Order: sequence, then C-alpha cells, then structure tokens
Amino acid sequence: MTIPPKSAEVSSAVRDAIARLQMEYVHVIDNNELERWPQLFVEKCLYQIIPRAEHEQGRRIGIWFCDNRGMLEDRVSSMREVNVFQPHVYRHVIGPTEILGHKDGAYTTQTSYIVVRTMHEGEMQIFSAGRYVDEIVIEGGAARFRKRVVVPDSWRFDTLVVIPI
Amino acid sequence: MTIPPKSAEVSSAVRDAIARLQMEYVHVIDNNELERWPQLFVEKCLYQIIPRAEHEQGRRIGIWFCDNRGMLEDRVSSMREVNVFQPHVYRHVIGPTEILGHKDGAYTTQTSYIVVRTMHEGEMQIFSAGRYVDEIVIEGGAARFRKRVVVPDSWRFDTLVVIPI
Amino acid sequence: MTIPPKSAEVSSAVRDAIARLQMEYVHVIDNNELERWPQLFVEKCLYQIIPRAEHEQGRRIGIWFCDNRGMLEDRVSSMREVNVFQPHVYRHVIGPTEILGHKDGAYTTQTSYIVVRTMHEGEMQIFSAGRYVDEIVIEGGAARFRKRVVVPDSWRFDTLVVIPI
Repeated sequence: MTIPPKSAEVSSAVRDAIARLQMEYVHVIDNNELERWPQLFVEKCLYQIIPRAEHEQGRRIGIWFCDNRGMLEDRVSSMREVNVFQPHVYRHVIGPTEILGHKDGAYTTQTSYIVVRTMHEGEMQIFSAGRYVDEIVIEGGAARFRKRVVVPDSWRFDTLVVIPI
Repeated sequence: MTIPPKSAEVSSAVRDAIARLQMEYVHVIDNNELERWPQLFVEKCLYQIIPRAEHEQGRRIGIWFCDNRGMLEDRVSSMREVNVFQPHVYRHVIGPTEILGHKDGAYTTQTSYIVVRTMHEGEMQIFSAGRYVDEIVIEGGAARFRKRVVVPDSWRFDTLVVIPI
Repeated sequence: MTIPPKSAEVSSAVRDAIARLQMEYVHVIDNNELERWPQLFVEKCLYQIIPRAEHEQGRRIGIWFCDNRGMLEDRVSSMREVNVFQPHVYRHVIGPTEILGHKDGAYTTQTSYIVVRTMHEGEMQIFSAGRYVDEIVIEGGAARFRKRVVVPDSWRFDTLVVIPI
C-alpha cells in the first residue's frame, strides 16, 4: 500500500552543491549583490516567473521570460541604471530542496519559498510565496541553473516585479 | 556553567531520513498531492492540531484529532468529494528539525514552520506559525510519523482548517 | 567570466555544529527557554540589533547592544521579573547558513530569517525579516556565537523589542 518516496537518491556532494546554489541565489538577491545573480545560471538558460494557476494549465508565458544569461544581465543593468522604482528589498526564506530526478544531464528539483518585501519606509509584507521548479547542472563541482521556473501561488502583484524573485 | 546542547546525536542516515520526511510532508500538502499525505504516517498513528496555549496546559484535544491512518485518508477523501470550502492553497516553509531524543523506538523531534495561505483571488496571508512536535520511526531506511502534533502559536483561525497544516 | 562562489569550504563537522547552533538559537527563543539563550554565546561576546540601512552605513549602535554574556543574562532576568510588556511569542524560520570565511579563530557567516509574532489574543504578523551576520567559534565540538549582529531589513518596530530576535 505504501507509496514510495518520490525523491531521487543522489550523492551528498551533489546534494551539497545544489543546496549551496539555492542558498547563494537568495543571498545575492536579498543582499543586493544582483550582479552575481546571472552567474548562477549557465549561458544558455531559461528563467521564468509563471503563476501557479497558469503553470498548472501548462502555459509557458508568465511575468518574466529570459532565455539566455545575457537577458538576465540586461535586467540587472537596467535595474541599476534606471532606478525609477520605489526602493525596496526582499528577504527570501527557502525550505529544503527536493531532488525529483535526473534528465538530459540535469537534476530536476523543487524548493518552496516565502519572500517578505520591505519598503524604504520600513513597511513589510508577504510579497510572494511559492515554489521554484528547477533544472540544475553540475560542472566542475559547482551547480548552476539551466532552468529556473518561479511558480508563485498567487497571480497578483501590487506592482511590477522589478527585482527577480 | 554552560548548559550542554539538548539535541541528540544520531547518524547522518537517520538525520537524512527525518529531513526527507519533513520535506515531503510539506510538499505533498502545498503541491496538492494530498493522497500521498497519509502514506507519510504509520498505520497506527496520531495526528493532532493543538494550539500552543492548550498544549502547554497539557490538553490533548485540539482542532483536529486522528488516531489512525484510515482517518487521515477519510479526511482527504471528503476534502476531494465535498469541496464546498473556498479554494485556497498553503505554502509551508520549515526550519531545520531538532532531534531531541529517542523513546519507545521513535525519534522525538521538533520543527518550526510558517504557513502562507493564498486564496483563489490571489490574496495572501500568514495562516499559521508554530511548531511540529513529532515521534518518527524508521523502517527499511524510510522515516514515517508515528505521531505528529501540530502546535500553532495562535489559537485563532478565521475559517475551518480544511487542509491539514 | 564566471564569478566563483563566495562561500568557504569547511568540513561537514564544522558545518553541522554551526547549523545546530543556528537551530538551537531560534528554538530557545521561540519555545520560551530564554534562560538557555545566553549559553549559546561565549563569555566575551557581542550581540547587537542594527537595522539594515544603518548597518550598511557602518554604524555600530542599534536597538540592542550587549558586549558580554552577563548583559544577555540580565536581559533575560529583567524580562522574567518585570513582565510588563504585552505577552507575545515569536516564531523564526531561518534559511541555510552561508559560511563566508574564517578570521581570528572564528567562522564568519550569514543566515536569513523571518519572524512571525503572535500576540496573546492570537493576532499574527510579520515582526521582522532580515539577516544574521555572525562570528562563530567552535570549542570542544560545539559552536558558540562570539558575535551576532541582527540586521533587520526594516528599521521600524511598532513596540519595544523586548524579546531578542
């Protein structure tokens, strides 16, 4: 009767490399080191934000769509140069990463997150809660995202999403 | 003068199995795979939700009380069939699990959690914050709950708790 | 082009000891075992709460300032004795700890946190979100804080911070 656990068995070195990638991802965003953010992806990558309802319907177009690292770097540059948006910061807390399998040379994983946004005036609120659905490759011992789909549980954002989630 | 750490020493295999169970528990709930939820418990199990104030007074009756796996399965079935409640999803983020000891063949542990609830219309709020107090058995390398007491810090819920926490 | 990961490589024993310290810290606070809280620091320690904006400007005076363990113990004693503040509890959820380096015999680390506060009447809200910036020493296999700087993203608190964050 018992349904076996779905999680894949991997070596602790792989698990550690993936955990470190997940951690560095949220730290570079939250601590305003966004120039390091694209470096956590491979050159030919995919980064998307697709709200849960649309993701479950198989839609592939969401709020953000970047299909190579240059686009991620452009996002960061324009954020730094234009800077018209109301200043705010994020704080992510992530849960443990579940490694679901391995396909086409990448580990498929999911990780839950909650993001609190703090405005310049000090006001805090839950900005997003959801799940990262990833494809992660390991090269030379370091993990990088080949694909990261951010799947927020809510489709509503009170403003443009300027900083990546 | 120094008070020694209370945490118990266990093998990394045990720790990994417990961490995986904790992770799968929140993923099956948050990702709407509730049919897998009862499978994370042994047949003769206890699942309860007892608010903190009552738990500290030693009360054993709370918001939910299920003392075998069949009751957990019934809960899931009725949730799926009736479906009268307002659609919503949870997102748990859990902290690390503290293994406190071992008694009667089970590990006793505690794990902090925060749950964000997202309504169908996109509205998010903190639904519950608290602590899991567990007894976990390991059989054939896999961990299962013998007892899970959910201890929310707050005794107030704005609606019935339909989905398990 | 790739920027190497900043995280330091440490043994798994060190990493485990640090992870355990981080976990015990939040559990002693959230589960009202505050008498154990000072014991997680070495005798000659520093504990501060400095809001992010001020921390980034290099200011060293914040909301709390304790520069030895006796001061931490005094804080706990007065909390227990006076008890004039409105009863409330915290629930921390922390992310993984990033070990950034090692200097003067201590590991330098950072860890993200979110704290939900629950009032006696059951009302919950996000009380603080931010980052711990720590110096951690390992003595006899156990980790202790030599320095913990709590860096909340927001500088606003609706009340005095009575319980440590």
